[in-house]
Amino acid sequence: MPTRKSSNPLEDLFTETLKDIYFAEKQILRALPKMAKEATAPELKEAFETHRDETEGQIERLNQIFEGMGRPARGKTCDAILGIIDEAKEVMDEFKGDDALDAGLVASGQTVEHYEIARYGTLKTWARQLGMEDAAKLLDETLQEEIKTDKLLTQLATKSVNRRAA
Amino acid sequence: MPTRKSSNPLEDLFTETLKDIYFAEKQILRALPKMAKEATAPELKEAFETHRDETEGQIERLNQIFEGMGRPARGKTCDAILGIIDEAKEVMDEFKGDDALDAGLVASGQTVEHYEIARYGTLKTWARQLGMEDAAKLLDETLQEEIKTDKLLTQLATKSVNRRAA
Repeated sequence: MPTRKSSNPLEDLFTETLKDIYFAEKQILRALPKMAKEATAPELKEAFETHRDETEGQIERLNQIFEGMGRPARGKTCDAILGIIDEAKEVMDEFKGDDALDAGLVASGQTVEHYEIARYGTLKTWARQLGMEDAAKLLDETLQEEIKTDKLLTQLATKSVNRRAA
Repeated sequence: MPTRKSSNPLEDLFTETLKDIYFAEKQILRALPKMAKEATAPELKEAFETHRDETEGQIERLNQIFEGMGRPARGKTCDAILGIIDEAKEVMDEFKGDDALDAGLVASGQTVEHYEIARYGTLKTWARQLGMEDAAKLLDETLQEEIKTDKLLTQLATKSVNRRAA
């Protein structure tokens, strides 16, 4: 953990968590093309590709927030996302070539989305608490995209992917 | 990864993911008393203690599902929850004694809940797809508890914990 930078513990917590999700987003940016490549259903491939592009925009929003705070945009190792992505890789290895692969990819995608939903929800609340309205707005934009992606994955799972796997 | 046990890939995926969440629940059961101990706000302590008791019931439901499938209840290492809990420990170490500790604990609790929400949502959908209605019902009961706990944590965060930290 880096040394404290401010006299406000909540601001420190906010900054640490911002670094956590910044690292996480960069990992997700690298994982999504692999997931898109492995997916067999065209609509699932497309969902991962679209979310990859969205992730670039989400990283850009984080850059803006760091800039607004006068701090360098910097990540710190996020063990949670590393574990989540490791599990996604395990599913890809284990179910490669199986009809259930897409169902597994959707499930992995949803664990990623839910991690982000938890983090962005928290960060938005803290930004408001700290009077950082611009940051709160940017964080909420990303939060809404994550919720939308999670819902899309649920639809794909229930409507097509699982039907193919069963 | 263990050897395949059935000729239905979705059933294999279901079983693997059941083992994943079984392991995760046992880790959560061990982490919650520590989080309750560290929390300073009485209502947050209580929330973690209540959820610890709920977690026991959730493990019991998983036991029932394994039993219904004629399989031994067994976990397999879930890297995601290990990473999530490591991050919670980091926050407890870094913010110990600070007014922001409770805010950090709520945030950690919500990453745990969201992992579970993603997993139980997926498992419920797959159980339905596999015609395992009893399992789907049990999984949905747990899912609703996780969603309720997440909402309670959001309330605690916005109503009291953050106010104290700022």
